[in-house]
Amino acid sequence: MGVASAERLATVFKALGDPTRLRLLSLIAAQAGAEACICDLTAPVGLSQPTVSHHMKQLADAGLVVREQRGRWAFYRVVESTLGALSEALRPPAPASEN
Amino acid sequence: MGVASAERLATVFKALGDPTRLRLLSLIAAQAGAEACICDLTAPVGLSQPTVSHHMKQLADAGLVVREQRGRWAFYRVVESTLGALSEALRPPAPASEN
Repeated sequence: MGVASAERLATVFKALGDPTRLRLLSLIAAQAGAEACICDLTAPVGLSQPTVSHHMKQLADAGLVVREQRGRWAFYRVVESTLGALSEALRPPAPASEN
Repeated sequence: MGVASAERLATVFKALGDPTRLRLLSLIAAQAGAEACICDLTAPVGLSQPTVSHHMKQLADAGLVVREQRGRWAFYRVVESTLGALSEALRPPAPASEN
């Protein structure tokens, strides 16, 4: 893995290295269309809207979600291609003779 | 995702949230048997052995590698089940109607 790829990938893993952000991402992924209004995310994690917004910004900066403003609410959608790329990067190598 | 699972998973992602650790893990995974001597890891990342050891300890604490001492050298092996579990956790949900 080259330095540039490692830098990019590390940024995304860093965004995932927080239990609240993982729970937020998991909550959104579980919704229809992998999309959720911020108004539906605060109660399940028990945090204020500014705190949730801050976490969501970090997920958005890492390319894990996209944000769309609709009227007074922000909606977030999981970027499945980013998750897919991470999943691929972590896929264990083909089985070796010893395991 | 429950609080306890999120805490566990976040610890592992945090360990991956550093470009040097990602490169070390990738170097080890590329070796035969997904195993490498620390003596072969310092040159590719251009860091001292104590620094590499420190990073390796964080990967080991996260369950991403196991360490085995053989004579004067430490050997590290990738824990494929940990990588597999992360890869599964990141797998995008089944395609929804809109995408």
